[in-house]
Amino acid sequence: MTAGPSVASAAARRLFAEAVVIDGLDTSNWGDEQVFRELRDGGVTAVNATCAIWEGFEEALANITAWLRWFEDYADYIRPVRRVADIRAAKAEGRAGIILGWQNAAPVGNDVRRFRLFHALGVRIVQLTYNERNLFGNGCWERHDDGLSVIGLAAIREMNRLGILIDLSHVGDRTVLETIEHSEQPVAFTHANARSQTDYPRNKTDEAIRALTGRGGVVGANAFPAHHRHGYDSTLDDYLDAVDYLVDMVGDDQVAIGTDFCMGRSLEWFDWIGASHGREPYLDSGDVPQPFRLLQGFASPLEFVNVAEGLLRRGYSEDAARKILGGNWLRLFGEVWRDD
Amino acid sequence: MTAGPSVASAAARRLFAEAVVIDGLDTSNWGDEQVFRELRDGGVTAVNATCAIWEGFEEALANITAWLRWFEDYADYIRPVRRVADIRAAKAEGRAGIILGWQNAAPVGNDVRRFRLFHALGVRIVQLTYNERNLFGNGCWERHDDGLSVIGLAAIREMNRLGILIDLSHVGDRTVLETIEHSEQPVAFTHANARSQTDYPRNKTDEAIRALTGRGGVVGANAFPAHHRHGYDSTLDDYLDAVDYLVDMVGDDQVAIGTDFCMGRSLEWFDWIGASHGREPYLDSGDVPQPFRLLQGFASPLEFVNVAEGLLRRGYSEDAARKILGGNWLRLFGEVWRDD
Repeated sequence: MTAGPSVASAAARRLFAEAVVIDGLDTSNWGDEQVFRELRDGGVTAVNATCAIWEGFEEALANITAWLRWFEDYADYIRPVRRVADIRAAKAEGRAGIILGWQNAAPVGNDVRRFRLFHALGVRIVQLTYNERNLFGNGCWERHDDGLSVIGLAAIREMNRLGILIDLSHVGDRTVLETIEHSEQPVAFTHANARSQTDYPRNKTDEAIRALTGRGGVVGANAFPAHHRHGYDSTLDDYLDAVDYLVDMVGDDQVAIGTDFCMGRSLEWFDWIGASHGREPYLDSGDVPQPFRLLQGFASPLEFVNVAEGLLRRGYSEDAARKILGGNWLRLFGEVWRDD
Repeated sequence: MTAGPSVASAAARRLFAEAVVIDGLDTSNWGDEQVFRELRDGGVTAVNATCAIWEGFEEALANITAWLRWFEDYADYIRPVRRVADIRAAKAEGRAGIILGWQNAAPVGNDVRRFRLFHALGVRIVQLTYNERNLFGNGCWERHDDGLSVIGLAAIREMNRLGILIDLSHVGDRTVLETIEHSEQPVAFTHANARSQTDYPRNKTDEAIRALTGRGGVVGANAFPAHHRHGYDSTLDDYLDAVDYLVDMVGDDQVAIGTDFCMGRSLEWFDWIGASHGREPYLDSGDVPQPFRLLQGFASPLEFVNVAEGLLRRGYSEDAARKILGGNWLRLFGEVWRDD
């Protein structure tokens, strides 16, 4: 992933340098030094770093074990985030704060008591299910979605109790609405756009976006090209259009950024995440072109500053830009996470 | 579990002694010598012996490991069944043939390739899901049932290919219909009655019974008291009424017996099977009285002969009685199992 030269104005650079910048979801090839360096050098204060998609219990523990080592080995670039104060510390230190997050609650198996274990290890954001059905709910690419199961309700209660932010980005429409209804805390679309703007199953209905934000949740505008009107030819302007669209719908207090960056990921990795349960290719959730292209002008953390420039250019106030760049995530994390 | 004296006539005793007698489901406390002795002494030729309900992959393997030892230790009473010829052999030997069966496909996790492993170990009957949602479908006590998932279709294809009989007794109504539709082989309700006769969620709709038998499947009339009109006060006559009702609906070629016996099971075990995923008591699927009572007159394998007596008394021909006692299961197993 290479980044073009930044075209940001001095005002945008200054705003960006001062802001708490939070990426609602990044699923890059963690453990690669260049990935961590770009996060830091790009000025990302904190990121929801995916550490489980199709993994089971033991594999998810192995991934966290690897992270514990990376926090030591790459301490120049990154630091762990378990509470809001850690994000403030990351900003002060000039390091990227890592929020351990899952795109699928599957690692707990059928034992919701395990959320406590993973919370103790630092997991703070959990997507209920990824694309398909799991024990808790149905995904956006499933054959059917009738909502939450009995144990799905138990999972929500347990995440609410522990203070784990529930993510519904890849979740099916009915399960999304039921989760919003049953969760006692606000929930998030960490990386999703509006389906009424770009008709794609992974984008969210207006009903869901209004219900989620109506209960205090936040929507992170997604930078993954397939979710934009011009597909893999989309640019930063398309991204800013998606932000504008969401802000027009729900205001600038509940819209944020979720890049869906996947730096350094191989074709095999894309096959894995796209296959049914990471195995046989039973699922058709769309091909990813190779070489993989992200949005022109917003293809890596090094271009994050371009979003600040774009927001100011489009007339957002500095205050609104700061909220979208990270302030809104910070507010939501503060409401949901129990400081331990 | 104690059995009263048999009241069967000489004609019934002779018929029973000659017949292949198959129990579509028994979930007793396996490993107990008395349980195995009663199976043999009761004249049961073969039984679908539950060896997984809430177990995961490793626990299911541990249960089969235990069975491999019991086949050695209790060879006077039991023998393994992997093919129809093994049932014929069990009859000739005067031993009870054990068909390893699951009440929940959960032990394969999200990897349907594992059906091949368990098939190689002797598993021949697999219920798609137990009471609740699993990755494949929804159970009869779930909040919702919208049918099969993407990986649920894959599971059915794999079980069809291997020749594993799919059981839908504890499965939700919509998932039942979709599985019947998508399975290339006939499927079974190994232990379920008609809901139009006794209105209970675990019993099956007429639509489902007709669809299943319309494609060659078999319904095993269930002897679990809660599924009968007089609940825990039900008797052998209620059981025979359930058989009559099913035979009136679909004829005597596709009705059989599935006792749901649970000899030697503790209160803790009933709590375990009744709890959500065998853990927290989130699920209300009905209390079981203690001491536990089965049907008066059909409470143990030692009273199996009473069913033969009852069928003859109610006017069934000897041929029809033989089909219901085991012939119909034998025909279905022969169609579905691939002899290895």
